[in-house]
Amino acid sequence: MKLAKIRLYDLAGAEDDRRFSPNCWRVRLALLHKQLPFETIPWRFTEKETIAFSGQGKVPVIVDGERFVSDSWAIAEYLENSYPDNPTLFDGLMGKALSRFVTDWVEAVLNPEIIRLIITDIYSHLHPKDKDYFRTTREKLFGTTLEALSADRDERVITFRDRLEPLRRTLQHQSFLAGQTPAWADYVVFSSLQWARCISPFSLLVENDPVFSWREQMLDTFDGEARQAIAYSC
Amino acid sequence: MKLAKIRLYDLAGAEDDRRFSPNCWRVRLALLHKQLPFETIPWRFTEKETIAFSGQGKVPVIVDGERFVSDSWAIAEYLENSYPDNPTLFDGLMGKALSRFVTDWVEAVLNPEIIRLIITDIYSHLHPKDKDYFRTTREKLFGTTLEALSADRDERVITFRDRLEPLRRTLQHQSFLAGQTPAWADYVVFSSLQWARCISPFSLLVENDPVFSWREQMLDTFDGEARQAIAYSC
Repeated sequence: MKLAKIRLYDLAGAEDDRRFSPNCWRVRLALLHKQLPFETIPWRFTEKETIAFSGQGKVPVIVDGERFVSDSWAIAEYLENSYPDNPTLFDGLMGKALSRFVTDWVEAVLNPEIIRLIITDIYSHLHPKDKDYFRTTREKLFGTTLEALSADRDERVITFRDRLEPLRRTLQHQSFLAGQTPAWADYVVFSSLQWARCISPFSLLVENDPVFSWREQMLDTFDGEARQAIAYSC
Repeated sequence: MKLAKIRLYDLAGAEDDRRFSPNCWRVRLALLHKQLPFETIPWRFTEKETIAFSGQGKVPVIVDGERFVSDSWAIAEYLENSYPDNPTLFDGLMGKALSRFVTDWVEAVLNPEIIRLIITDIYSHLHPKDKDYFRTTREKLFGTTLEALSADRDERVITFRDRLEPLRRTLQHQSFLAGQTPAWADYVVFSSLQWARCISPFSLLVENDPVFSWREQMLDTFDGEARQAIAYSC
């Protein structure tokens, strides 16, 4: 019998309540979808020792009683397998397999575009103790400065919006990626847009885009959980 | 009681047996998946009157007893709804919704890249009576000559291979897009690669690509139906 809430280690910015990690948002929405009680623990990039028990250095990490899981996809699988009687994230094996593809589309196509648009804003909202770590690791990763990476964002956002075209087309057929109601596939796409909203005043979407309307609906799910987060109105 | 085979009007090239339409390949594989007896009828772009009964001018069109359906997605929906006891293409509502996204990804991202790579080869394999129609309609659509559109294909194929990255990542998790066994999501991607194979000697994939290996498996499904088609070995 499990009475304790699940704990989610959740990336925070300068303020404890600025939660901007796309991978953590996926998990938060998945926990709400599964109707599981949970609490979040603000965590910063440089607090590696706090989650050392998980055997790695990144969030999300969840702790559920005596079990812990890291990596957002592994957490989704864990929740689905451990709580099969709660609302489903995947609706069976084919739904899970295709949700994996949506996750890979987000990670291979959307996230590399979004990071270019918001990386200087991420930097400016970080906790002071994370700033050097973030700049050093990201500038090494991208081979350029944060400022250079996002210098062309006014043009580059057009490319990003083009990349959303498959989603835009699907939303002409159905209310959500997962069908009549949202599920993991929606959370994984939405969380990348929420990442930007929570950290940057730069508008990724224009209001007449069907993706914008879908995002509005996603902001309203779970009694407006994502809308109530500290974020920019963009 | 239905005894007649389903008839599929299927785009053909110069030879009756050169069947290259990606949308028709989707339907052929869906019919095999659903284990429904069918026959194909070679059809050319300019034979509009032959399918005028369908109320439009494009294949695929299927005729099932007294019913007819056009548009590959509508046909998949029709087969799934009409033959619910046969093997499923979608595995439920979420699987169907996510299969729609894969279809939109193929149509919005992959097909516009592939057409640039193979359009001159399509032209050269058409039935003589279709050639003027094809050149005229496509050059109007693209605003340039067929030859100009594919002139940079040696470089452009790199972009195409980049676009496959989400699929490539997913195939590191699972054997097929739809999971352990192929379904509509696999057929819709494969059919676009088969489109190229059936009409062009130009290699879209390199052999060490996981997408290449997956395509090999797809070529072997249904007793090698797609492998036995008139096509190039590329």
